[in-house]
Amino acid sequence: MAVFQATRTRSTHRAGLHEITEEVAGELARSGLSQGIVQVFCPHTSCSLVMMENADPSARRDLEGWFDRLVPAADPNFEHTAEGPDDMPSHIKMALTRSGESIPFCDGKLLLGTWQGIFLWEHRRHPHRRTFVVTVLGE
Amino acid sequence: MAVFQATRTRSTHRAGLHEITEEVAGELARSGLSQGIVQVFCPHTSCSLVMMENADPSARRDLEGWFDRLVPAADPNFEHTAEGPDDMPSHIKMALTRSGESIPFCDGKLLLGTWQGIFLWEHRRHPHRRTFVVTVLGE
Amino acid sequence: MAVFQATRTRSTHRAGLHEITEEVAGELARSGLSQGIVQVFCPHTSCSLVMMENADPSARRDLEGWFDRLVPAADPNFEHTAEGPDDMPSHIKMALTRSGESIPFCDGKLLLGTWQGIFLWEHRRHPHRRTFVVTVLGE
Repeated sequence: MAVFQATRTRSTHRAGLHEITEEVAGELARSGLSQGIVQVFCPHTSCSLVMMENADPSARRDLEGWFDRLVPAADPNFEHTAEGPDDMPSHIKMALTRSGESIPFCDGKLLLGTWQGIFLWEHRRHPHRRTFVVTVLGE
Repeated sequence: MAVFQATRTRSTHRAGLHEITEEVAGELARSGLSQGIVQVFCPHTSCSLVMMENADPSARRDLEGWFDRLVPAADPNFEHTAEGPDDMPSHIKMALTRSGESIPFCDGKLLLGTWQGIFLWEHRRHPHRRTFVVTVLGE
Repeated sequence: MAVFQATRTRSTHRAGLHEITEEVAGELARSGLSQGIVQVFCPHTSCSLVMMENADPSARRDLEGWFDRLVPAADPNFEHTAEGPDDMPSHIKMALTRSGESIPFCDGKLLLGTWQGIFLWEHRRHPHRRTFVVTVLGE
């Protein structure tokens, strides 16, 4: 058993889902490990991770739209608004999804389903430079 | 430290929660490992995993009913409807819950709470044959 | 590679977020391990774990308030009410967040973001004594 760890960055030019499956698979390949778990971690509180359908862009648009309707920016109940109207909705959308996702791998390949991708979900409207940590545990 | 990995299948005859705690515990027993983490992964985008109260069936029915009201099938905003009205709600319910759950174990036993079970949540109405991957990391 | 595991308890005097970052960091230090993954697990079905902004208390109050409005206690649809009106909402809030959170570490330090803390979220109104399991996998 061994540990491999790498940090990647991704610039997000807009709110919404940004696929990072290839970056994660690339770090797994670099680890040289054959079987175990890859953990992806997002050290931010206004973006998050989610597994999602990766074939039809309309599925991602519908997911983003539904979350926008569930957590409207103009909620008069919010007190934490110092960074603008998308500040508190971003934290809530992060809490409803994940800061970490773990994916098993075998024969050096992620055991993802055919239609399954790993996405960094930017919840802020303005461009950000985001980091994620890929940790591979296995043999 | 060692890795053990197994793939299981479960036929889901209806939408809702299907307990898989025994299958996961069975794979842990087969691993022969004593202490570490069991990770369960669901390689689908229209079903998911959730930890839930496993004693009173009404708690599971209330959870299913609440999610059905939160994400109604007949939402006119949805664009991704090729596979029917339960297509997009399934992806949303998956994103709101988990594709992976990790449970610690000690002395070869899952450290679950008294009322805690691991459930595969089928979000589609029609029967499906679902897969889940159990990975045990430990010693 | 090695495994370290410890169980901690926390008394919750009120519903809401209770930060446990220091306890988790303390167990990581006790493990003596340098690089890998820390997994925190909550063996309860009416409280949960969440990563959240740890600087401004208003962000946590807004998150709690938003969840209370999303899952009102007085929902006449609920059948599972034996333990009171906050019984079923607690299970739902648990399902919407996490029973387990995993955080990578390097050089013996959690790779948390600047504003990121680990919180035990008590969903019941009355005081409870809660347990969480910290498992460290690494080298």
